[in-house]
Amino acid sequence: MAQFSDLEKAIDTLVNQFHSASADKSPTLKTDEFKNLLSSQMPNLMKGVGTDQAFGAILRKIGVHDGEGISFKQFWGLIQSVATEQFGRLSGQKGSSCSCILL
Amino acid sequence: MAQFSDLEKAIDTLVNQFHSASADKSPTLKTDEFKNLLSSQMPNLMKGVGTDQAFGAILRKIGVHDGEGISFKQFWGLIQSVATEQFGRLSGQKGSSCSCILL
Repeated sequence: MAQFSDLEKAIDTLVNQFHSASADKSPTLKTDEFKNLLSSQMPNLMKGVGTDQAFGAILRKIGVHDGEGISFKQFWGLIQSVATEQFGRLSGQKGSSCSCILL
Repeated sequence: MAQFSDLEKAIDTLVNQFHSASADKSPTLKTDEFKNLLSSQMPNLMKGVGTDQAFGAILRKIGVHDGEGISFKQFWGLIQSVATEQFGRLSGQKGSSCSCILL
């Protein structure tokens, strides 16, 4: 990967983490696959998510309905929330509304 | 950074690349700062962008108007395009319309 920049490698990581989480390489993840992905890769996000209800709230927040698979776009929405929150902290901005469910 | 997962580190990279590209740590990048960021970090994207007109087309595509700074949200829209395209390739899906300007 030496020919890729740090930013390109970061994009590649995000894409591959989602893709690899699907056992059958489906474009969407099953609920359990998504939960495993977040538990292993976003432990800080999942720390406060001890219950199925709390995990269900995350799914609803990114627009997943009960029993549906999770699309890359929905996963990306979650990543965007985390990244935007982090950028806000770096820039010394306080979000007007804290979406504490995500961080 | 040993305590962070690959995915968390990837998010951190994306946020920090944008933040570091601003000389005065402003929440938005100047046009030249954004151009330098893309040239160094997304050379494959910029390969086809030899002219100011082509770079201007990228800016318009992510919603930047002439003379305006580039926000993190707009930068993120560009990252999302690239990531979504890459995920589509991994999943063997063909986008119905190829946004060749971005890749």
